[in-house]
Amino acid sequence: MIEPRTLKGFRDFLPTEARKRNYVITKLKSVFESFGFEPLETPTLEYEDILAGKYGEEGDKLMYRFEDNGKRRVAMRYDQTVPLARVVAQYKNDLPMPFKRYQIQNVWRAENTQKGRYREFLQSDIDIVGDDIALADAEVIATAARALDTLGFDKYKILINNRTIFNFVNEEMNWTADQGIKVVRAIDKLKKIGRDEVLKEISNVGMSLIDAKRGLEIIETKKPTPRLEETFSILKAMGIENRRWEYLPTLARGMDYYTGLIFEIEIDEYSAGSVGGGGRYNNLIGMYANQKYPAVGFAFGFDRTMEAMEALNLFPDEITEATGKVLVTIFSEETKQKSLEVTIKLREANINTELYLGELKEKNPLEKQLKYANQKNIPYVIVIGPEEVEKNMTTLKNMKTREQQQLSLEDTVKVITQ
Amino acid sequence: MIEPRTLKGFRDFLPTEARKRNYVITKLKSVFESFGFEPLETPTLEYEDILAGKYGEEGDKLMYRFEDNGKRRVAMRYDQTVPLARVVAQYKNDLPMPFKRYQIQNVWRAENTQKGRYREFLQSDIDIVGDDIALADAEVIATAARALDTLGFDKYKILINNRTIFNFVNEEMNWTADQGIKVVRAIDKLKKIGRDEVLKEISNVGMSLIDAKRGLEIIETKKPTPRLEETFSILKAMGIENRRWEYLPTLARGMDYYTGLIFEIEIDEYSAGSVGGGGRYNNLIGMYANQKYPAVGFAFGFDRTMEAMEALNLFPDEITEATGKVLVTIFSEETKQKSLEVTIKLREANINTELYLGELKEKNPLEKQLKYANQKNIPYVIVIGPEEVEKNMTTLKNMKTREQQQLSLEDTVKVITQ
Repeated sequence: MIEPRTLKGFRDFLPTEARKRNYVITKLKSVFESFGFEPLETPTLEYEDILAGKYGEEGDKLMYRFEDNGKRRVAMRYDQTVPLARVVAQYKNDLPMPFKRYQIQNVWRAENTQKGRYREFLQSDIDIVGDDIALADAEVIATAARALDTLGFDKYKILINNRTIFNFVNEEMNWTADQGIKVVRAIDKLKKIGRDEVLKEISNVGMSLIDAKRGLEIIETKKPTPRLEETFSILKAMGIENRRWEYLPTLARGMDYYTGLIFEIEIDEYSAGSVGGGGRYNNLIGMYANQKYPAVGFAFGFDRTMEAMEALNLFPDEITEATGKVLVTIFSEETKQKSLEVTIKLREANINTELYLGELKEKNPLEKQLKYANQKNIPYVIVIGPEEVEKNMTTLKNMKTREQQQLSLEDTVKVITQ
Repeated sequence: MIEPRTLKGFRDFLPTEARKRNYVITKLKSVFESFGFEPLETPTLEYEDILAGKYGEEGDKLMYRFEDNGKRRVAMRYDQTVPLARVVAQYKNDLPMPFKRYQIQNVWRAENTQKGRYREFLQSDIDIVGDDIALADAEVIATAARALDTLGFDKYKILINNRTIFNFVNEEMNWTADQGIKVVRAIDKLKKIGRDEVLKEISNVGMSLIDAKRGLEIIETKKPTPRLEETFSILKAMGIENRRWEYLPTLARGMDYYTGLIFEIEIDEYSAGSVGGGGRYNNLIGMYANQKYPAVGFAFGFDRTMEAMEALNLFPDEITEATGKVLVTIFSEETKQKSLEVTIKLREANINTELYLGELKEKNPLEKQLKYANQKNIPYVIVIGPEEVEKNMTTLKNMKTREQQQLSLEDTVKVITQ
């Protein structure tokens, strides 16, 4: 016997969990499409050189890569932004610009697994490629807000900043670009490790604690850039409420490729981390194309979003019910034909209908079937015995209330769909 | 610059293609759920020993496998049946039996690429695990038929056989099990290579041409097994029309793990190959569990299905249109506010609405925006210039008829949604 087991960091999604995932994916897609984003899919495997070197040292370490049968160095999708960059460069003559796409696919990272960190996980991205304007920045933020509304989140806030603030500080403080990046990475952890630790980390990259303090203070008191002001005023015009967003000059975000707007979602009552974030990256696509393609985008961390929805009880109650709304039982060989007929009629009436498909060996075969309906959380059960066949009726049992009644097929349909 | 390119056998799905894929996936899911199948997802990577040795020598050769960072031998999902077997064994105490699941995920095979053959492709499976009864066999066939109906296929036929027929022939002919398997593999190619070539191939595995001929004749004239007869009579009771299925004793199907029912879909007017098939496999799951779990299932070959739909023109015309049903243009900085307001109102009316997000540098900025709508195939365009702002109207342009009219916002919504 082969021991059945899964790799650490990889997950099976059994029906209840899979239904929840489908629910969220469907909602996200409908919001993205209502904003005119188009679907895009890219391959799981890419040439290694397409992905390598774009995510910094840590990214390169965490990438799944190997040699395929044809001795090609290949790597598994690490995020959806670099594949988008490759797509834009590869099909630039065929794509309408600005190019707006959403992408909901798995990505893989050889992370140390821990609570909420997996090696295979779904990402849900939107991006607008082709122009560097505040309207596009605002549209991405507005889409994220609409998605959060649609999923049922109420107490969320979008923290917004502009990466160029850090360039300004570098100049003020006479820090090198390399020091600047390290400062950004340190400030990125402000919430997680606190002010003192951040200062210590900044002072570790070759500057005095006094300089570190002064730099951080410059950042903390920096006014929004003119571009941010424009973005904020568009957000207002788009009807995004004030309580939904906040300017936070210390927001840094880790990814090195951001060049302007950066933003992150924070949910009150869910402190495990941000459910998503994004920003503007005007130089990434140019690495694959002969020209510059400014771009702005946003990614939902799907697992965090699911976790937050679970914590805030945002899934509808029915999500725990089976996809089959009714189980048609089989009483005996003699009544089977009638059960089949009823099943077909119910399906024709657009009711998700499950026919019991187990063997019937027991004296009381119904007991097993009712247990099955209970275990799967199927809301209704139909019993068709000799009496029901004779009367041309069904016995419909509501599994929640335990009530049952004999009904014509027509009324059965009515009760289930009401 | 990094040359943007994809690996052979791997594909990008740009918006129009991705929309078509989503269309088919949505239809398949709704049919599967109407029969009470539940969603399941399994990981992309599995321990190599879970997958290896299940698909025969060729399968082992075609599997993507490598060593991960933790020195574990891992392999990419090759089909969805073996992962299902692993799942059933791993969670057997929690799963309701019979366990009915659908699974729509990618699989990977290091195939020689050729027309219609890819290294990454989507599979769409349904399976019923837990009991070995004709009712389950028939339900899987009925689900496949319903899916084909729903996708719009008319002239399809489900070819049906039972693998045990070949055991019978082995006994009759005194062939060893190994010879038997080779005969099955040869007969599997009957349609593709013809009778003479099949006979030649059979006679190559250690039997005379006369024996091969006699064996093939025994198969060709074999009556349906009692189990098949029962399955056929249930199909009738389920209302599946006679023209929809056919008993074909020479149907073999390649996979070694089938133990009973086998079936395959044939579509008139699409001769490139079967769009799907399935059968009963009662021994596979037992390789991972301490007990036997009989099972029956079906897999749609997604690419073939897409190809057949394309060939038979089964996609709705709207599939070539953008997800955004209307483009709200921006005339100038002064009128922008009004364009934003209209966009929000349209989205509130559940109309997928795209706001133009490009830079406006030209003298006539509308020209570029109309071109954009044309390229994306967006059905309607709204123009809001100073006149429209003053009158509180929109100019709505139907991009197909080229007609345009000035309308109140209310009427704009009506025309677009009519």
